[in-house]
Amino acid sequence: MTHGFCHRHVLGLEGWSRDDVLQVLDLAETFLDVSTRPIKKVPTLRGRTVINLFLEPSTRTRTSFEIAAKRLSADAVNISGSTSSAVKGETLLDTARNLQAMAPDVIVLRHTASGAPHYIARHVEAAVINAGDGLHEHPTQALLDAAVIRKHKRPGGRGLDGLVVAILGDIAHSRVARSNLIGLGLLGAQVRVAAPRTMLPVGIEGYGAEVHARPEAAVEGADVVMLLRIQKERMHGPALFPNTREYSRYFGLGPRLAERMKDDAIVMHPGPINRGVELDPAIADGSRSVILEQVTYGVAVRMALLYLVGGGAPTEAA
Amino acid sequence: MTHGFCHRHVLGLEGWSRDDVLQVLDLAETFLDVSTRPIKKVPTLRGRTVINLFLEPSTRTRTSFEIAAKRLSADAVNISGSTSSAVKGETLLDTARNLQAMAPDVIVLRHTASGAPHYIARHVEAAVINAGDGLHEHPTQALLDAAVIRKHKRPGGRGLDGLVVAILGDIAHSRVARSNLIGLGLLGAQVRVAAPRTMLPVGIEGYGAEVHARPEAAVEGADVVMLLRIQKERMHGPALFPNTREYSRYFGLGPRLAERMKDDAIVMHPGPINRGVELDPAIADGSRSVILEQVTYGVAVRMALLYLVGGGAPTEAA
Amino acid sequence: MTHGFCHRHVLGLEGWSRDDVLQVLDLAETFLDVSTRPIKKVPTLRGRTVINLFLEPSTRTRTSFEIAAKRLSADAVNISGSTSSAVKGETLLDTARNLQAMAPDVIVLRHTASGAPHYIARHVEAAVINAGDGLHEHPTQALLDAAVIRKHKRPGGRGLDGLVVAILGDIAHSRVARSNLIGLGLLGAQVRVAAPRTMLPVGIEGYGAEVHARPEAAVEGADVVMLLRIQKERMHGPALFPNTREYSRYFGLGPRLAERMKDDAIVMHPGPINRGVELDPAIADGSRSVILEQVTYGVAVRMALLYLVGGGAPTEAA
Repeated sequence: MTHGFCHRHVLGLEGWSRDDVLQVLDLAETFLDVSTRPIKKVPTLRGRTVINLFLEPSTRTRTSFEIAAKRLSADAVNISGSTSSAVKGETLLDTARNLQAMAPDVIVLRHTASGAPHYIARHVEAAVINAGDGLHEHPTQALLDAAVIRKHKRPGGRGLDGLVVAILGDIAHSRVARSNLIGLGLLGAQVRVAAPRTMLPVGIEGYGAEVHARPEAAVEGADVVMLLRIQKERMHGPALFPNTREYSRYFGLGPRLAERMKDDAIVMHPGPINRGVELDPAIADGSRSVILEQVTYGVAVRMALLYLVGGGAPTEAA
Repeated sequence: MTHGFCHRHVLGLEGWSRDDVLQVLDLAETFLDVSTRPIKKVPTLRGRTVINLFLEPSTRTRTSFEIAAKRLSADAVNISGSTSSAVKGETLLDTARNLQAMAPDVIVLRHTASGAPHYIARHVEAAVINAGDGLHEHPTQALLDAAVIRKHKRPGGRGLDGLVVAILGDIAHSRVARSNLIGLGLLGAQVRVAAPRTMLPVGIEGYGAEVHARPEAAVEGADVVMLLRIQKERMHGPALFPNTREYSRYFGLGPRLAERMKDDAIVMHPGPINRGVELDPAIADGSRSVILEQVTYGVAVRMALLYLVGGGAPTEAA
Repeated sequence: MTHGFCHRHVLGLEGWSRDDVLQVLDLAETFLDVSTRPIKKVPTLRGRTVINLFLEPSTRTRTSFEIAAKRLSADAVNISGSTSSAVKGETLLDTARNLQAMAPDVIVLRHTASGAPHYIARHVEAAVINAGDGLHEHPTQALLDAAVIRKHKRPGGRGLDGLVVAILGDIAHSRVARSNLIGLGLLGAQVRVAAPRTMLPVGIEGYGAEVHARPEAAVEGADVVMLLRIQKERMHGPALFPNTREYSRYFGLGPRLAERMKDDAIVMHPGPINRGVELDPAIADGSRSVILEQVTYGVAVRMALLYLVGGGAPTEAA
């Protein structure tokens, strides 16, 4: 099943093929099952060491990777801290080389600097998985998003061809959006983005996305509506919109905008949700929301990726 | 042995039966043995996931649960932080639902808000164990206290009938006191409480406790003298007593008060001790102190509870 | 192989025999191999509990011990925090006694106070390993340093007899230097130290070291040049040297000083490196640097020590 997966690292979906993505999605389906058993554990990565190096705080993603590693029987070691203080003023490269000297099989890195995982990947033998780097990519999020969309909209199918996915929010400052633009494109989905002009990146057209200034047009006819988290911490300089109430009114998914959605459209959000800002609580908890399934697939996709790059032996689960 | 234990969660001893408590105590006795072996591990919860969600800091209790989980072969995942910052402004409910989506078997929750474990228990499939919630309950502490009292005062017996237990200190702001009032009552012990008036809760009589304004009368003839930790962080508003020296003089257990104790009375404290405030160091370390046994039984009682609600298969240890 | 190792704890190299050190080094060689296998794990300490109690922050050393424990199949429990806040104002002794009551097999302690591990060792049944105590000792660092030196300079040999080791830097405030002075002395190496006068401890001659005021004479003819980290946090009171640029110029290992080194001398540093202060980046990353091998041997030496004091059963790896 792993035939043909040629990436030693998971740094981003840039440069991946459609088959690469599909392979992860197929494998994730098989691992999904492990978490539903009474004994949620396969011996696949027994004796492997997975280091979760989270130099930007993220309880959720770290927990997801830690659980994924443990369900594969790997030894998981967590290192957290701010970029500056984690290891006494050491450079990221020295940190990475030192960890490498302890012979880990996989280093999962979250970092505030775009490109940090690529940088350390050039200097370590361990496989590196990008758990979010600055404004750049968050490939495991995009892969789990694709897995959930496929489950709902193309069950049993291969890609996402013909589907329309609307992404609403701060596209410019979202690594989730960026990875999703690439991943959804590879799988054949048509992506629409809608955001205030200040939240649209330069060069967005290069990703083949339709750009909308208003969300109404974006959600109409869409099979998937994906909200992004408003991340104030990512907005440097002058404010990108007047205030969160204004944002909510024009770009949040509330009842009025939801009326324009297809009846069978699904609503996604990478979490954590700012309830009442980008997403109305009733919709977040409503029947069209697949937000918690995203979390469930997160563990399965991360198990698949750890398996693919962590050197696991085939097991009955895989 | 688990026949009849009908609680899916361990939220508090309110609503428990005497048999529920006894079942935990009996099971804890069998697990106590595991920690004395060279190989301190049984496969009971292999492949189960236990999440320790400590949104109020507690090194001791978290360590106790983590060790209990690991000695049962469960995968233990720690999440800690302050209530407000743990997961980027997410609500407790969203945090709980997200964790649930990762398919844990047990969520151990410590939280500053009374009722937090009950709240999340209504929304997750995992078993929830209350590791202390605000001013409400701390059921695992009360269970381990009962186990230690039984060992010393009713070895081989069932309950604690006929025993007199004196609890001294800030009853009003102690979840330990509250859970103990319920638990000791279920087991048939007579509880006396002694505290400054400002530290007595409204409605204390409802628990069937004798209330004393002065500790001398409470400890006389008592089989057990339990001190509570003075927790300044729990006293909002005006001070509840002039200062710690005053407190120590009137309500601390020092040599003068200890003289009134029965020769074979045991001294208990949930820890950590404020040496010289509520408890004289010589008594804390003296022959009547069973404080460290409380810690040892803490691991065993938590193993029993994880076993009972975590869906473990019977093993030779259980 | 463990015949004759008579230490119940690893508190410091003071009082060790040459044979004790050699036994650890020999055993570390065999454990080194474990980390190179696909399945980096031996069952040696299965069911044992190792508590990493780091009351002075140290990501690197904690990670090394955690990985060592996990590769021996022990359950590793991490407790970290500052000395003052870790466990709600509890004394170190109470913390240690409480942990002991949870029946750990090994407590690995890092602490800001010199002598802290010795103090708790007198009060617990668990084996205590000193992971660095104040300005006193850092025995595991010295043992891994000796292991690396032996590998390069006396492969297949027993001790380090006849070798010359130059240690440059803040000898007075370095527990690494202190442990190395003892360890290298036991193995027969001649140690030279060079430091600004303010950084030389009183009584340095008692360790049998040659003292040099200038590093040039120290490195000439030396087989090993070991730099110490400039630790500003350890320098209380008035500054010990004008500034880091001055320090770098006179005591840092840069190209000019490196020219005086023997061609086959090796360069060591306990990390983390202050690049450009005590060590020139090109030399840190150059062919004579064995700094990352020190990290690799760190895991192996700690596995050996955990094995020796943690009560492990012999395995094929040991």
